[in-house]
Amino acid sequence: MKRLAILGSTGSIGTSTLDVVAAHPRAFEVVALAAGRNVERLAEQVAAYRPALVAVADEAAARALAARIGSAARIVHGRDGLVEAARLAGVDLVVCGLVGAVGIEPTYAAVDAGHDIALANKEALVAAGAFVIARAIETGAAVLPVDSEHNALHQCLRGEDPKSIAAIWLTASGGPFRGWPRDALAAATPEQALAHPTWRMGPKITIDSATLMNKGLEVIEARWLFGVGPDRIRVVVHPKSIVHSLVELVDGSWKAQLGAPDMRHPIQYALTYPERVAAPRPRFDLLAAPPLTFEPVDTDRFPCLPLAYEALARGGAAPAVLNAANEVAVEAFLAGRAGFLDIPAVVRAVLDRHADAPCGALDDILAADRRARVAASEALAIGVKP
Amino acid sequence: MKRLAILGSTGSIGTSTLDVVAAHPRAFEVVALAAGRNVERLAEQVAAYRPALVAVADEAAARALAARIGSAARIVHGRDGLVEAARLAGVDLVVCGLVGAVGIEPTYAAVDAGHDIALANKEALVAAGAFVIARAIETGAAVLPVDSEHNALHQCLRGEDPKSIAAIWLTASGGPFRGWPRDALAAATPEQALAHPTWRMGPKITIDSATLMNKGLEVIEARWLFGVGPDRIRVVVHPKSIVHSLVELVDGSWKAQLGAPDMRHPIQYALTYPERVAAPRPRFDLLAAPPLTFEPVDTDRFPCLPLAYEALARGGAAPAVLNAANEVAVEAFLAGRAGFLDIPAVVRAVLDRHADAPCGALDDILAADRRARVAASEALAIGVKP
Repeated sequence: MKRLAILGSTGSIGTSTLDVVAAHPRAFEVVALAAGRNVERLAEQVAAYRPALVAVADEAAARALAARIGSAARIVHGRDGLVEAARLAGVDLVVCGLVGAVGIEPTYAAVDAGHDIALANKEALVAAGAFVIARAIETGAAVLPVDSEHNALHQCLRGEDPKSIAAIWLTASGGPFRGWPRDALAAATPEQALAHPTWRMGPKITIDSATLMNKGLEVIEARWLFGVGPDRIRVVVHPKSIVHSLVELVDGSWKAQLGAPDMRHPIQYALTYPERVAAPRPRFDLLAAPPLTFEPVDTDRFPCLPLAYEALARGGAAPAVLNAANEVAVEAFLAGRAGFLDIPAVVRAVLDRHADAPCGALDDILAADRRARVAASEALAIGVKP
Repeated sequence: MKRLAILGSTGSIGTSTLDVVAAHPRAFEVVALAAGRNVERLAEQVAAYRPALVAVADEAAARALAARIGSAARIVHGRDGLVEAARLAGVDLVVCGLVGAVGIEPTYAAVDAGHDIALANKEALVAAGAFVIARAIETGAAVLPVDSEHNALHQCLRGEDPKSIAAIWLTASGGPFRGWPRDALAAATPEQALAHPTWRMGPKITIDSATLMNKGLEVIEARWLFGVGPDRIRVVVHPKSIVHSLVELVDGSWKAQLGAPDMRHPIQYALTYPERVAAPRPRFDLLAAPPLTFEPVDTDRFPCLPLAYEALARGGAAPAVLNAANEVAVEAFLAGRAGFLDIPAVVRAVLDRHADAPCGALDDILAADRRARVAASEALAIGVKP
């Protein structure tokens, strides 16, 4: 029986995690849930899974939840509440399905407490990978990637010496705009960008998939998860999202992980690791699969990917700045306050204004994140040239 | 420095093995070579690699070799010589590249002596897998498959619990006759059958690839190598031979190994295992690869595959009988004494005449092998109905 703390329980990853838990009721016990303001859904989850601790965004949400669940669980709120859920004693595995930079501190807190973590939050590794991974090594916490690409690589690298990695190949569906000319991208709407061809995910990550910033963030994640430099991390467009990523080994052999694009697979893998457990879902049918094709990324049309490589090469807080500027720009795009090509333009402008400086502590990263958000809002207000 | 005994050194696997050895001269020492009657090539290999022991087919070959190499190596011959090379004290790894049933006894001898074995000889596992694997477990000898398919599976299964295997998927190129109608197969010539679309191999295995008996033998090998029943071993046609095989795991995840179709890759993998060592060969280029497609086998046109499943289900000596009858039929086909469709017809007839009986020892298998050869020759002499 693994005792779980699920951060972001009402989001896409959180609800899929609870699907997996519901399918294996004797394998898992939910001891903590954390969510934002969706207290209605959260109250249902509390009733179904009976956690001891529940964290919500703020005092208002805490009061609203208390009105629904009474004393069924202890309710905490805010940043401190989230960190308390992440550090909770007796937890075997923290599932971090938080979206955005809000995931950084609780992720660090979980590994600092020595908890294994199933990590779906990209930003914790993008912004603070050096700190999170170094601390995880010190405390012995396992960082199990839930992102389908990194999860695929984790599977391919079981039983392999990390020194055997020649290159990591992250697959990208190419998103809804893969075949679009650059001119058309300027007029792309949120609705079009949200129509992802293969994966069903939350809105932020779906927009990131359309810009390919998602893949850029994954390049940075891969650097920390697998300890390989950017020169050994490549991105390849694979429109059908069947091969979830590949590893090229020094002896010329390649390994790939494949299957249906269903987030419950990587979530279950991380939840049951190192065991594999039968999944109550339709089997992937290789004979019904379309031809598997691979093509290069057009970085002219999708400049977010080279921007991410650039931030990774600069190091320090640059990836955090990239990520924060991107979050602000995506939010503006989703709200209709910015065009699709404004997203890379804002990131470019904010990265250009960022001054490299040594980052000695997680707080330096968080401060750079805050400055980048201000800079991105300013760039949006004064207008950027795509 | 690994000390190698290479059995079948002048054949396709043997020469590729020596290519790999030559590329890593400090990693390997060749202490024994065994070949048949190609004494000219063997003499060159003795001069280049300076083994202490050399085994040849018979006394005449031994004399011919002695005339060339003098006392550069101790020369032995016949079945006993081959077994002596396989058991040689101080050997770290026996590479068995022998073709056909002649490989059974030296393979057993190698694992009986506790030597790890890089096994390219299919027949040792097809005919005597139960004995070879049971003895290897007793002595602690590792059986490392060199066949590209099983080697691929070995790579995919590193770090995995064998209990996690839902199914093993062996890929088949489909051979040169993949698109041919059944009627045309009756008139297929050895030249046509030897024109394999993707792999360069010896003649026997190339004909087996054209009939798909090769894949049938691999199904039986997989049963012993990976301990899975025939209901969990599947064959899928993958014409480009880029994906060398796949494993489907119980949690719905699939893993595949891929790369260039070059036997030096799996040979090197087995030679350096568990390490991976840089290979001095062109890198596989995923972006230049054709679309990867998978289709079912047409067992009506290629009845050798269901015959192999049938023999595996019957158990005992039936797989040895299947293999022996096939060897005789392929030899007749290559010599122009039988048609292409006579191959499955002879195997069918000999399997039908075979009476199931308990096999308590390797000798029972070898006796069944001999009886099947006689029966196959008789079937060819009196004629079989394809």
